[in-house]
Amino acid sequence: MPPTTPYLAVDLERMQVNIARVADAASARGLALRPHAKTHKTIEIGRMQVAAGAHGLTVATIGEAEVFAAAGLDDLCIAYPLWIDPPRAARLSALAARGAAISIGVDSVAAVERVARAGLAGRIAVRVEVDAGHHRSGCAPTEAGAVAAAAVQAGIEVEGVFAFPGHAYAPGARAEAARQEAEALTVAVHSMRAAGATPLVVSGGSTPSFAAALEIDSPVTELRPGVTVFGDAQQWELGAMDAAEIALTAHATVVSHAGGRLVLDAGSKVLGPDRAPWATGHGRLLDHPDARIVQLSEHHAVAELGEGDALPPLGATVRLVPNHVCMAVNLVDELHVFDRAGDVEPSATWRVAARGRNS
Amino acid sequence: MPPTTPYLAVDLERMQVNIARVADAASARGLALRPHAKTHKTIEIGRMQVAAGAHGLTVATIGEAEVFAAAGLDDLCIAYPLWIDPPRAARLSALAARGAAISIGVDSVAAVERVARAGLAGRIAVRVEVDAGHHRSGCAPTEAGAVAAAAVQAGIEVEGVFAFPGHAYAPGARAEAARQEAEALTVAVHSMRAAGATPLVVSGGSTPSFAAALEIDSPVTELRPGVTVFGDAQQWELGAMDAAEIALTAHATVVSHAGGRLVLDAGSKVLGPDRAPWATGHGRLLDHPDARIVQLSEHHAVAELGEGDALPPLGATVRLVPNHVCMAVNLVDELHVFDRAGDVEPSATWRVAARGRNS
Repeated sequence: MPPTTPYLAVDLERMQVNIARVADAASARGLALRPHAKTHKTIEIGRMQVAAGAHGLTVATIGEAEVFAAAGLDDLCIAYPLWIDPPRAARLSALAARGAAISIGVDSVAAVERVARAGLAGRIAVRVEVDAGHHRSGCAPTEAGAVAAAAVQAGIEVEGVFAFPGHAYAPGARAEAARQEAEALTVAVHSMRAAGATPLVVSGGSTPSFAAALEIDSPVTELRPGVTVFGDAQQWELGAMDAAEIALTAHATVVSHAGGRLVLDAGSKVLGPDRAPWATGHGRLLDHPDARIVQLSEHHAVAELGEGDALPPLGATVRLVPNHVCMAVNLVDELHVFDRAGDVEPSATWRVAARGRNS
Repeated sequence: MPPTTPYLAVDLERMQVNIARVADAASARGLALRPHAKTHKTIEIGRMQVAAGAHGLTVATIGEAEVFAAAGLDDLCIAYPLWIDPPRAARLSALAARGAAISIGVDSVAAVERVARAGLAGRIAVRVEVDAGHHRSGCAPTEAGAVAAAAVQAGIEVEGVFAFPGHAYAPGARAEAARQEAEALTVAVHSMRAAGATPLVVSGGSTPSFAAALEIDSPVTELRPGVTVFGDAQQWELGAMDAAEIALTAHATVVSHAGGRLVLDAGSKVLGPDRAPWATGHGRLLDHPDARIVQLSEHHAVAELGEGDALPPLGATVRLVPNHVCMAVNLVDELHVFDRAGDVEPSATWRVAARGRNS
């Protein structure tokens, strides 16, 4: 029997192709790859990424780092400007003590001082986060030198510099975001060198900007895409990935034809409620490219099909593509793995081991 | 030590006031109360609601029903148009066999036939779901009789009829949605009586329409509000609840002042990414009513404060109000309970026992 809907299904064959494609593309340009594991939070997938050539993994939280390190995936960048307090310092020290190579983000001199005061110099490294136009965290590229110098002064290893071009998540913005990222990192590298802290790693990349980042003149030495492993409706709509590359879907049952529409038992508690202003719906149907989820609540998705597309019958199973796959994965305890599309029985069940590890 | 941010904190005193207020309001009108437990998914809170007078709980899935029934909270309405297959039938039968009183939603004759064919007649009851203007699931009110008659014919107990006026989730729409709900349920009751199936329970209600539903002439005998237990930024902005009633917040640390704004370590993976078109932001700050979360990613919330409101310092803890509390609760394994606002140490930790029970 297949699992009871709704559940998340991984198309193993497609996912392996995605992993290899990204690894090969980075390697062909001589770039290191450090995929962001917040997308999948799954040990089995992290191992496949490293086996395919990733130099390590990126994570967002200490909790994610603990889960992956415990499984031996212990070359980890926590790409986040952590504010260090004694409990966080103790957890990072424990990771270092068991041999994990950990770097964390810093975007201010004050944050560097917290790392130093907590006694983490010599145990973990830092990467300076700079803002490349997304305007979230990250110091101005011209300030990277001052932040790095504070770390050097405190005896903290400065491993590198990183940016996240999240403003690539908009129609037509991918190439320009990659260009701005390259420019910001160039300025940051100059600033750091002038301050006596040469970054070994210059890290960038998001899934939408990944292809463009490979093509342009840039100081980048490492890329950190996350969503490339699965794809989702956002990448499909941005043109960053094709429908044929989507390797994770939510399998849902048609429970009602109320109002002549398709009512499905997968809601925002399995798909995630993300909807960017430019998204064409709350998610899509992999086998009905003209369909859109037009209404989404916690346990219902209401879909409208394209003209002439017949409503799947009551009780049928359909494959939904979440808008943002990272949110969907974080809502479930397990991923059901199908060796290839069309298989009825999963061949394996993987635990989403780092689900909910927000701190 | 308080927990490491980000975490969800319950203000116990406020929550108890909320539970009592809603129970008393329903009781004063002679209405039964069956709070929707999908909001909290927590045994301890379900018990408090029943102790305060709730006649049972509403849930959205069989999985939620299993969790609450196992804790002895076994008078349950699954307010969802389940499509019954053999595994679902076996689980419902098992619940009935251990003495749970279970009703499920049906919105078509075909769905009733599935219940009958699965051998569930005499084990569970059904409630006919009608559409009161939200246009999600639910048959037309005039069709309720045909659906109920099919159940009677098959020997299935028809416990009642229900609607969910989800279109109350819009500015200025609360009273009109309650009025439409009353009208739809009136039509449905007539349709069912004409078909020989008198509904004992006529159930309605959402949090935004709750107050209005108490005031109007209506056939409603039972209400099913969910969010009233905690409140959230949506209810605050709709005017359905006050800031002073909000009993659940996400505690977050200020990790950066990048761009002169507040960058906090609570992102969409703890707040939930819900943002209705009419919401003024991605969430709010309980102690800074003029502030808005203007940018939200998985682990960052960027907030802008009101004019003249000083930025809390780096490392400070602030209290965030999620837009939609049901999504936030479903993202965490535990709720940290503070006896009253201002307490630094939680007095208890409650497990979100039905988290992720989507099927």
